[in-house]
Amino acid sequence: MQPQTPPTLSALTDRYHTVRAFTEHLCETLETEDFVIQSMTDCSPIRWHLAHTTWFFETFVLGEFDRGYKPLNPQYAYLFNSYYIQAGERFDRPRRGLLSRPTVAEILVFRAHVDGAMDRFFSTAPDVVLERARPVLEIGLNHEQQHQELMLTDVKHMLAQNPLNPVFREVDLPVGKEQPLTWVRFGEGIREIGHGGDGFCYDNETPRHRVFLEPFELANRPVTNAEFAAFVDDGGYRNPLHWLSEGWSRVESEGWTRPLYWERHDSGWHSFTLSGLRPLDPHAPVCHLSFFEADAYARWAGARLPTEFEWEAAVVERGGGTEGHFVDDGFYHPVSSPGGSEDQRAGGASMAEPQLRQMLGDLWEWTSSSYGPYPGYTPPPGALGEYNGKFMCNQYVLRGGSCATSRSHIRDTYRNFFPAYARWQFSGVRLARTV
Amino acid sequence: MQPQTPPTLSALTDRYHTVRAFTEHLCETLETEDFVIQSMTDCSPIRWHLAHTTWFFETFVLGEFDRGYKPLNPQYAYLFNSYYIQAGERFDRPRRGLLSRPTVAEILVFRAHVDGAMDRFFSTAPDVVLERARPVLEIGLNHEQQHQELMLTDVKHMLAQNPLNPVFREVDLPVGKEQPLTWVRFGEGIREIGHGGDGFCYDNETPRHRVFLEPFELANRPVTNAEFAAFVDDGGYRNPLHWLSEGWSRVESEGWTRPLYWERHDSGWHSFTLSGLRPLDPHAPVCHLSFFEADAYARWAGARLPTEFEWEAAVVERGGGTEGHFVDDGFYHPVSSPGGSEDQRAGGASMAEPQLRQMLGDLWEWTSSSYGPYPGYTPPPGALGEYNGKFMCNQYVLRGGSCATSRSHIRDTYRNFFPAYARWQFSGVRLARTV
Amino acid sequence: MQPQTPPTLSALTDRYHTVRAFTEHLCETLETEDFVIQSMTDCSPIRWHLAHTTWFFETFVLGEFDRGYKPLNPQYAYLFNSYYIQAGERFDRPRRGLLSRPTVAEILVFRAHVDGAMDRFFSTAPDVVLERARPVLEIGLNHEQQHQELMLTDVKHMLAQNPLNPVFREVDLPVGKEQPLTWVRFGEGIREIGHGGDGFCYDNETPRHRVFLEPFELANRPVTNAEFAAFVDDGGYRNPLHWLSEGWSRVESEGWTRPLYWERHDSGWHSFTLSGLRPLDPHAPVCHLSFFEADAYARWAGARLPTEFEWEAAVVERGGGTEGHFVDDGFYHPVSSPGGSEDQRAGGASMAEPQLRQMLGDLWEWTSSSYGPYPGYTPPPGALGEYNGKFMCNQYVLRGGSCATSRSHIRDTYRNFFPAYARWQFSGVRLARTV
Amino acid sequence: MQPQTPPTLSALTDRYHTVRAFTEHLCETLETEDFVIQSMTDCSPIRWHLAHTTWFFETFVLGEFDRGYKPLNPQYAYLFNSYYIQAGERFDRPRRGLLSRPTVAEILVFRAHVDGAMDRFFSTAPDVVLERARPVLEIGLNHEQQHQELMLTDVKHMLAQNPLNPVFREVDLPVGKEQPLTWVRFGEGIREIGHGGDGFCYDNETPRHRVFLEPFELANRPVTNAEFAAFVDDGGYRNPLHWLSEGWSRVESEGWTRPLYWERHDSGWHSFTLSGLRPLDPHAPVCHLSFFEADAYARWAGARLPTEFEWEAAVVERGGGTEGHFVDDGFYHPVSSPGGSEDQRAGGASMAEPQLRQMLGDLWEWTSSSYGPYPGYTPPPGALGEYNGKFMCNQYVLRGGSCATSRSHIRDTYRNFFPAYARWQFSGVRLARTV
Repeated sequence: MQPQTPPTLSALTDRYHTVRAFTEHLCETLETEDFVIQSMTDCSPIRWHLAHTTWFFETFVLGEFDRGYKPLNPQYAYLFNSYYIQAGERFDRPRRGLLSRPTVAEILVFRAHVDGAMDRFFSTAPDVVLERARPVLEIGLNHEQQHQELMLTDVKHMLAQNPLNPVFREVDLPVGKEQPLTWVRFGEGIREIGHGGDGFCYDNETPRHRVFLEPFELANRPVTNAEFAAFVDDGGYRNPLHWLSEGWSRVESEGWTRPLYWERHDSGWHSFTLSGLRPLDPHAPVCHLSFFEADAYARWAGARLPTEFEWEAAVVERGGGTEGHFVDDGFYHPVSSPGGSEDQRAGGASMAEPQLRQMLGDLWEWTSSSYGPYPGYTPPPGALGEYNGKFMCNQYVLRGGSCATSRSHIRDTYRNFFPAYARWQFSGVRLARTV
Repeated sequence: MQPQTPPTLSALTDRYHTVRAFTEHLCETLETEDFVIQSMTDCSPIRWHLAHTTWFFETFVLGEFDRGYKPLNPQYAYLFNSYYIQAGERFDRPRRGLLSRPTVAEILVFRAHVDGAMDRFFSTAPDVVLERARPVLEIGLNHEQQHQELMLTDVKHMLAQNPLNPVFREVDLPVGKEQPLTWVRFGEGIREIGHGGDGFCYDNETPRHRVFLEPFELANRPVTNAEFAAFVDDGGYRNPLHWLSEGWSRVESEGWTRPLYWERHDSGWHSFTLSGLRPLDPHAPVCHLSFFEADAYARWAGARLPTEFEWEAAVVERGGGTEGHFVDDGFYHPVSSPGGSEDQRAGGASMAEPQLRQMLGDLWEWTSSSYGPYPGYTPPPGALGEYNGKFMCNQYVLRGGSCATSRSHIRDTYRNFFPAYARWQFSGVRLARTV
Repeated sequence: MQPQTPPTLSALTDRYHTVRAFTEHLCETLETEDFVIQSMTDCSPIRWHLAHTTWFFETFVLGEFDRGYKPLNPQYAYLFNSYYIQAGERFDRPRRGLLSRPTVAEILVFRAHVDGAMDRFFSTAPDVVLERARPVLEIGLNHEQQHQELMLTDVKHMLAQNPLNPVFREVDLPVGKEQPLTWVRFGEGIREIGHGGDGFCYDNETPRHRVFLEPFELANRPVTNAEFAAFVDDGGYRNPLHWLSEGWSRVESEGWTRPLYWERHDSGWHSFTLSGLRPLDPHAPVCHLSFFEADAYARWAGARLPTEFEWEAAVVERGGGTEGHFVDDGFYHPVSSPGGSEDQRAGGASMAEPQLRQMLGDLWEWTSSSYGPYPGYTPPPGALGEYNGKFMCNQYVLRGGSCATSRSHIRDTYRNFFPAYARWQFSGVRLARTV
Repeated sequence: MQPQTPPTLSALTDRYHTVRAFTEHLCETLETEDFVIQSMTDCSPIRWHLAHTTWFFETFVLGEFDRGYKPLNPQYAYLFNSYYIQAGERFDRPRRGLLSRPTVAEILVFRAHVDGAMDRFFSTAPDVVLERARPVLEIGLNHEQQHQELMLTDVKHMLAQNPLNPVFREVDLPVGKEQPLTWVRFGEGIREIGHGGDGFCYDNETPRHRVFLEPFELANRPVTNAEFAAFVDDGGYRNPLHWLSEGWSRVESEGWTRPLYWERHDSGWHSFTLSGLRPLDPHAPVCHLSFFEADAYARWAGARLPTEFEWEAAVVERGGGTEGHFVDDGFYHPVSSPGGSEDQRAGGASMAEPQLRQMLGDLWEWTSSSYGPYPGYTPPPGALGEYNGKFMCNQYVLRGGSCATSRSHIRDTYRNFFPAYARWQFSGVRLARTV
């Protein structure tokens, strides 16, 4: 929320169109029926995502800065507010899947209505107003990109309920190559943590501050499907000693026996993907783990999860660049790292400085850090102050970004967060250990 | 399930087409989004009703009697079985609203596929086979008509969740006229109860048997909205002494303060209808009551509910004909009885024999009878034996048929049944008292 | 509630002392800790039973008829009211097990306080007042006897939670003798049902009225443990086709695989009893069945449950006397009928008139009748009108009385009632069939 | 778990007797009924605490080190294991309140049996064995002292359910004196955190390690009842903007409107205490807050909770000694700090170095730190490794010790932890802020 070297306004309006269009692009293969369903209370219907992201601009940009704006339907403010108490009453989150109206077509009209109003606003508002609106606009675009990722994870969860195994998008996936696990060492010392440079960031990435790290090691790559299958085969889901107490309660109450979306067939493990049911790629990173499963695996493997500070320090020092597979490029699967370009990159680095791989853009990596405020953190005033701060309890930080994350969201300091039981995000695990 | 004087086969095939077409006719004003939602576990999505009624013919007619039949999709048998254990595994009822596929269009293709196969079956099967299939076909048609009623009640419940108050079908309703409440007396004696004549009936209406009735009186018409509003205004929903103990628990746990779909506006009571939000017609029969509310009202009014035997005896002796407003005629609202024809009819009867009015076809009338088997009842063999018998517990019988019931389902012996808390059917109350 | 030929007042005061003393006698083997626990919400702690039965006399006799009475502690009225809304506010039923005070000793002081006040009332009140109090006193005594039975079933349920298998009372049980199952036939006709003669009865046994019964047969004795074990061994708890739909849901949600208190040991079936864990007596009647289990067994056996009217007509015509084992005599187990006296009795009757056995006093027999009001039933005015009427919904009638029932409660017209899932009463099943 | 300068063995056996006796001393005023009840699943019955602490010595000392030991009852191992998976099967925690046997008297026999065996073990075991047993013995004693605190909080919660407001122990409380709130400043820098010196500590206090702290300030004393009442009066429990999102859900779902045990009377706030219902002392620290309430108050007050590292650094630098009111001294109430001795102590310190007050021994102070492992933490091998580590998720750290904590548990590095919703501990809040 602290843009430093601001893009020109015309760059921002271009981005507005790009981001808004990409949201609709993601829906191209969906049937109308697919937009309606809320498959669990953590998810939302796609039609709601389409409308809520639009409501954001209507409420916080047009509603605040454009006196001439007329809402298409005043009830939408009630229907499509998510959790902004200062923005008024809200329709219950768990009941979002009970609404069939406005229809998808009507919601697309709502989107067009707001996009038209935004275009008029961009072209007619005085510069001083546009400058004041700019930070909110920035958040609105980043907010919509976050919802793009949620649309993919929510659609995947919804389609996975269906015994017909529907396909969201048919793609050919690169076949993975085995990568030996090695450890990369980091020395003790004070590190600067949090966002400090140019460009957009969320309030929760600030203020930049210092932490002291004891020496530690990080695995050069995420845990793979084959490695996790060994944990499953070793009875990992049946032995409480591997698990946090609360994690084991979850295993028992929800009957977990394998990662979400895995199925055991006679021909071996399969996994439900956005391209339908597929044989599991042994060398791809294991995905859709909860914090509990990531933590249990690490304990079984004689390691632990990294803290978010270790993770951030490591990516800064040995991150190896953003080599992931991003949603903007049309990838929606975590795949094992394609060899060529990376080997070159690795080859370019000195042997004495091994690089970490797949840190950014394959899958979100659980850290052991509970999501909390940085020293000196204060949420911004107004309703947007509710964006991050009030969720700083009983959630764990994930770092790195996934194959469903926008490329522009990939940065070293980005803090994603979910409850410890959440499994439906593209989330995996990278091992750490204390030296 | 005991057809006695069977219709000709060609009449049956005609009815097949009529009934099947009417199901689709009911959906004409729905948006695709409306087909998907299950607004509570007692309801089902419309797309499911469309498919399940089709599955019934596929499974019990084509699957049993047509060796050449090929299912369009073998997984549909799993997806669209409701509760027939002998017909194989079933998808969980409470999760029907989690499925977006097959789409509505695909389900219409499924309907056409089965309808085509049924046509071939009708025209090519040997007579002896058709005769064996006839009872199942009869049940299939009656089953589909029952689902037509559920489609209306389920759509109404779903649309009612929506703050936008969507309109299912815009209609003009006749304005009701006040009818004074009078009591019609019935003497003691043995009555014959249950279906005995020609024509189709369900197994639960048999065997015809004898019951002894002590003398009783029945109100000449159902309780009206105005009468029920007096109960509400008198604190009826706040005084536990009017209520059965279990009913009062429901009042407290679900916060009941008025009938389902009623809203108190500054301008007076309104009610959500299939034509949107409307001012309440004071003279129309009160509708969407649970058994608990019907019973509490009766106690408050110094009366009681009739038994199903009293009701059946009364309709036979003084029923006054089928004067209701049936779904086949395009009515979906309980309205106060239009004067003309009835007054004539009443006028035709002797003054010494007052008639009961609106017994058939306005709304289901709760009786005090728990739903159970008649003496000597045995369910038919095979999966269709699961149609009625296994639900004979903790449900109460409703009689008479509603404005959403097919005219061909209106008969003196018909036994509808729902749990005591169910409110989303077109259900009301007629008072009785012991002399 | 309609005493006709009233006992003398001194007989009534004698009964008061006898009944009150027997309540305390039942507690003699209990440890203080045993009085505190509420093992499920359907049960109450023994200390609560002791106090609530006392509260009844304090509230409805002393409070109404003795102006000089001073409550020992005014808060007890709140703590020990069960469900009488007209008698004031109540402490939540499910929270009865959260109270340790008043202690058992204090509650015994409360009992002595009320008993002393009652004695003074008996000896000083004018006859006209005593006569007015008499019906309430009668109910109070019957009420306390009902709670004596509940104390035994609640203690049994509570001790059964304990892996140590505590013994309530050590007794030698007679070894049962096999009795062949035969059918006793009853012809069609009108029967008089309900209480009509002298002596006390509850309001729900009235008014006496007529019902018509089609011909039926009743088994000469209840289903035995050995017979029920055959059902279990035949997979009875695994086959949904034997069960009512709601019963099967209960089987699945609560994991029922055998009657409550049965345990399968290497040496055969055992059962937890008030005398600890015992080998199952194959010829004793099967006990602690829910309505669902009784009904499923009957269906499996090709029979059905009797209606409560069939049961009452049968006991009147062929009941064979009250041959049970009553709590007053120190029996707390349903045992197979001891041969001697009964054989004599059977021998005394003509061969053409076979007698039904164990109808009264061994165990409550589930009927297929939902608990409802008799024609013309009206609850008495005042708080005692809440005794029976408001529970007439979603419960099923049991007849006959059990080994934990007071002998004075054994009568042909007595209607006990419990929800269909209840298993912790001494409840079993006698088969019926339609001829 | 790392005793460094070990006490002599005879000192340890003395402590054994002291600690064990104090447990029983705490029960002196309880009625037998009070030992049985589990008032919520977070609590345990007192009889269970008495037995479980004994089971600990039986299992981990006698069972491991004394081959001649014979258990009094082998089933106790099952009944009284809490959560040690490696020590065998366990009786369900939420069902502890369903057991009345073994009785309290039998459990005291069990305690005597184990104490006798321990005495024999102390006097006859070879020194080398005693030395090996010593660390487990140490844990066992600390474990029992932790349960002493839980006994007090569980008894308080249980008695508070009772409308009779029972008194646990009648005491006169010192009247509090107002203390102005001032801020104590701490500079940035690396601090050593965790246990490093002599004496016992738990594994979760190790390893000692370094953290970097940005500058911060801490309030000189905890928040008082009067201050918290101002928050309540200002609508603090009605305004979601003060609350974490999950905290607000809890406010709504559980109907929180004030701290646990507070009651609003006409004469002002009262609070249920172990001495019964008492007027609230305005200057005593507010107690029985959840993390959510502590956090909401801090936000309302324009401050925040300290991290556990800030707290530990502060107590080391300016802690002002252990001036609390400890359970060993017979205090069970957080009271406002008595002036005399402290003022002297404060007076002894230089004016330039203000001291923090009531850091140790009044009430547990919530920190903003999620409970997790220190860098390099590894649980000890064996069942005792389950003592702390597996709970490191979704709990928050409390520091300082309360009036119900043993004096020997008061140390700078001690980490207590509870879920964010827990209110029944003696827990309060001290404000912090970033400079």
